[in-house]
Amino acid sequence: MRPEQFDRLFHALADPYRRSMVERLSRGPATVSELAEPIAIALPSALKHLRVLEDGGIVLSEKAGRVRTYRMRPDALRTVARWISQREAAMNKAFDRLVQAMTDTPEEDE
Amino acid sequence: MRPEQFDRLFHALADPYRRSMVERLSRGPATVSELAEPIAIALPSALKHLRVLEDGGIVLSEKAGRVRTYRMRPDALRTVARWISQREAAMNKAFDRLVQAMTDTPEEDE
Repeated sequence: MRPEQFDRLFHALADPYRRSMVERLSRGPATVSELAEPIAIALPSALKHLRVLEDGGIVLSEKAGRVRTYRMRPDALRTVARWISQREAAMNKAFDRLVQAMTDTPEEDE
Repeated sequence: MRPEQFDRLFHALADPYRRSMVERLSRGPATVSELAEPIAIALPSALKHLRVLEDGGIVLSEKAGRVRTYRMRPDALRTVARWISQREAAMNKAFDRLVQAMTDTPEEDE
C-alpha cells in the first residue's frame, strides 16, 4: 500500500462518527440513513464522512435504484492490523535483546 | 480509552514521517537526531511530529542532561489492534450469518 493511501486510511479512522460507522458496517451492509440515524447526524454530514471512509479504502458503496448501500472492505483493516503486528514483533525482539544483554553481563562480586 | 484520545492516536499514525518514527522506535529508544536523520527532516519539524506522537499516547520521552530520548508506549498500539480485531470478529460473524441464511433457505423444485 502506498504511503498516501495509508495516510488516508488512518485519517479516516481518526473521527468518532466514522469509527461508529465502521462499527455498524462491520455487522453488515447499511444505507446512509441507517448509518446517520443512530449517531444523530444529518444526511449531508453522514455522506461527507462516508466519502472519507471510501477514500480511505475502508468502505465500498453500491447504488440500487435510489438507494446507496455501504459495506466494509475487510482488506483495509487487515493492512492496519498487519502494520501493528509488525511493530509489536519488533518491540518484542528489542525487549528480548535487552533481557539477553542484561543476562549476559557478568555481575560484579561484592 | 476516550474517543478524543482515540482520534489523536489515529491522527498521529496518518503521516508517513510519524509512521517511520514509530517503525524506528519499535526497534528501541532513540534521540530526536537519530529519528530525524534517516528520514531527512529538520530537527524542529521532527520535534513537531514527536509531539503529535506523544499526544497520541504512542511515544514517551525522557530528558537526561541535554538529550531527550523517545521510546514506544506499547499499550497504544495494543488498543488499535484490539479495536480492529473486534471489527474483524463482527465481520466474520456477519459473514457466518449470511452463509447460514443461504443454507437454511429451502430450494425450489424445478
